[in-house]
Amino acid sequence: MSLPGRTSPVPAVRRKNSVTSRIILTTYPGQSGIDPLPMNWGEKDPAKRGPVVVSRQQSTIRRRNAIGAHGGSYAIYHALAVASKNLDIDHKPDFTNTEPAVSIGPCPSWFDKKKIVAMDPLGHLAPWLFASTIKSQDVEIRPTIAITKAHMKIPELEASVKAGRLVSDGKICLNNTGELAVTKFAVEPVWYLPGVAERFNIEESVLRRSLFENTGGSYPELITRNDIKLFLPPIGGLTVYCFGDPAKMSDPSVRLALRVHDECNGSDVFGTDICTCRPYLIFGIEEAVKEAQAGGSGLVIYFRKEGRALGEVTKYLVYNARKRGPDRASEYFQRTENIAGVKDSRFQALMPDVLHWLGVTKIDRMLSMSNMKYDAIVEQGIEIRERVPIPDELIPEDSRVEIDAKIHAGYFTTGKAMSLLELSEVQGRPWEDVDH
Amino acid sequence: MSLPGRTSPVPAVRRKNSVTSRIILTTYPGQSGIDPLPMNWGEKDPAKRGPVVVSRQQSTIRRRNAIGAHGGSYAIYHALAVASKNLDIDHKPDFTNTEPAVSIGPCPSWFDKKKIVAMDPLGHLAPWLFASTIKSQDVEIRPTIAITKAHMKIPELEASVKAGRLVSDGKICLNNTGELAVTKFAVEPVWYLPGVAERFNIEESVLRRSLFENTGGSYPELITRNDIKLFLPPIGGLTVYCFGDPAKMSDPSVRLALRVHDECNGSDVFGTDICTCRPYLIFGIEEAVKEAQAGGSGLVIYFRKEGRALGEVTKYLVYNARKRGPDRASEYFQRTENIAGVKDSRFQALMPDVLHWLGVTKIDRMLSMSNMKYDAIVEQGIEIRERVPIPDELIPEDSRVEIDAKIHAGYFTTGKAMSLLELSEVQGRPWEDVDH
Repeated sequence: MSLPGRTSPVPAVRRKNSVTSRIILTTYPGQSGIDPLPMNWGEKDPAKRGPVVVSRQQSTIRRRNAIGAHGGSYAIYHALAVASKNLDIDHKPDFTNTEPAVSIGPCPSWFDKKKIVAMDPLGHLAPWLFASTIKSQDVEIRPTIAITKAHMKIPELEASVKAGRLVSDGKICLNNTGELAVTKFAVEPVWYLPGVAERFNIEESVLRRSLFENTGGSYPELITRNDIKLFLPPIGGLTVYCFGDPAKMSDPSVRLALRVHDECNGSDVFGTDICTCRPYLIFGIEEAVKEAQAGGSGLVIYFRKEGRALGEVTKYLVYNARKRGPDRASEYFQRTENIAGVKDSRFQALMPDVLHWLGVTKIDRMLSMSNMKYDAIVEQGIEIRERVPIPDELIPEDSRVEIDAKIHAGYFTTGKAMSLLELSEVQGRPWEDVDH
Repeated sequence: MSLPGRTSPVPAVRRKNSVTSRIILTTYPGQSGIDPLPMNWGEKDPAKRGPVVVSRQQSTIRRRNAIGAHGGSYAIYHALAVASKNLDIDHKPDFTNTEPAVSIGPCPSWFDKKKIVAMDPLGHLAPWLFASTIKSQDVEIRPTIAITKAHMKIPELEASVKAGRLVSDGKICLNNTGELAVTKFAVEPVWYLPGVAERFNIEESVLRRSLFENTGGSYPELITRNDIKLFLPPIGGLTVYCFGDPAKMSDPSVRLALRVHDECNGSDVFGTDICTCRPYLIFGIEEAVKEAQAGGSGLVIYFRKEGRALGEVTKYLVYNARKRGPDRASEYFQRTENIAGVKDSRFQALMPDVLHWLGVTKIDRMLSMSNMKYDAIVEQGIEIRERVPIPDELIPEDSRVEIDAKIHAGYFTTGKAMSLLELSEVQGRPWEDVDH
């Protein structure tokens, strides 16, 4: 393996055997062989805006106008597939029949570079909008958004139908098992770095440096390629579940219900009773369906931000500290901060982009109590007309600690926020067999 | 911002203000100021093995013996927290009371560097095992595994109790709502690169290069620091759900039931009917609980490998191609390969490590039909005594396409594998309103 002490020009000629050629540790603007496709974020004419190009295929590497890789964190598995010769790196994707299942937009926000900074508004159309570029310039352009349709069946919603809370209409709620028809949008992150920096009120250079250094020194091009403004970070994206006619999401004359949900695998899938995540999610789906059935639109958006975007290991460490605690609502946030150095890493600043993209201009019913989510959405100029807390009867007993601590810290409630003294009296179930 | 044309020595002196100091694009072995803590993977004596050190805190950066960052893909959020001044980079974590909720091991496999290559067998004990190193050398050492206990409640299991399939015993199944007591292990990936390369039958240098280049040029130290053998990749990890006494997992005299489950958010959380993921998962939990109730051990292990580790965007593109298809079982795998260049990126080669770590030496009931999972486990010397397919009545109608295609391709079945002709007749539900 040849190890250049410094960077070398990117070969303009297509290399046949990448395994024996030199490794390029980073690139610099203006370097011989570097010729990025133009990228004018926010530009209305797709031809002037340009496609997001991040692939390192031999014919594309010189033309990249984005740092990172497709697939978010799954780029690592892509690398394993190439390394183990299960995937030909020069495979040309065949996108026949993969076009979006419904059409959406364009909305004015698509062409406002302040409104959408964390996803590519053309991401669902990329291979088709830029078909001629793919053909004439032999570059790889992949979608970063996909839109499909599905049926879904959730046991709690079967119970809702039985209890008469949800009524089947044969179109949105298909039958008495509570089966739903849904349109789903999967979105991978595409960050326009100047816009992301602005949302966090920091300099672009500070953002770039932190993204490089505080991930352990990844993507040196964040530092060396100031000419490249896009970054596809190795994180999970989001999924939109839309109930009812997707055209209604952007129609200001009909009502819209929305749940913005951050992933919590332990509750969403496995039903732990220490938090309200799945109950609130299911409530959000039910309310979204009802709004759609009443002639409006219902949305649930699922963000991959496990454990407040600190991950499950940190989450479990916090659980242990709480349960050996005692587990008091008054100490709830401090437990996370002691371990992680921060209460919450979810940073809702980028979250509203998807609402802009969907054309949402106001929310009639926001199925969330989070002040962070509320503030982020309202700051983006999207009105929230009503906030709907999780109904008390859906709150598992052991999760009172979390919900009361959150209400004390600013979460919306129609009930009463507790004093610090009252908060110290809200205590969770101790472990059955823990020695205190 | 100073941009060194080539790499500079790492300052040995603690820098007070990292924002104004020079940016180090990559490091080299033997470079002035570089002094990694020893890491002897597989060594039995923890003092000789050494801690995993990956933090870039000022006092730790010179001592790193691992590439990457803590938290898997959540390192990006960590970087945002630092950039936006929500997190002091020199925060010292306080791990008081976060110790594992149950003790586990040590097992002989912990000290076999061929058996565990994708996680740190000491990851749950790191801050305590290496407390004196943390103190005397002022380095940051974090856990990469956390172990907690919880109660969980899944609506389908309430139905199981009602139907008499599951009986509450007050200890594992706590009551008639089907509430379960569980011990949970969250594990972040720590890759020992020579061992990972061996599992894939490739050279370490090929692995390193592909992990660098085919993720879009991340982590140049994969190339420049051959002396560092560990990599904490920016991907999701896994979670073990253990029912019954955790000590029984490694006891060869009692029975063990196991479900190895790869994430499928659309089914696991949202109940799509196009696949069998959630039904098989719930069946796995129920069977695991029963095995534990009968005096054995029951395990469900959840891997973050959404959409065959290709992610949800690719998954939805495939769904669209199938539904516009027609959706025939005979063309099922080809649809993914057309788009992604590979049928499946999950690569089960690293999956069995967690079984070695838990001390599992044989599996009495494997609740999976996957030949890839079966082969990977058996290749690691762990016997599988019985394979249990998902019961027919749990298979959603529209997911026959998937399950029949998989059985044809080698998935285990107690039923019959179809011929290609029969397979072409298994067809999924078309979209109601699609123009063919």
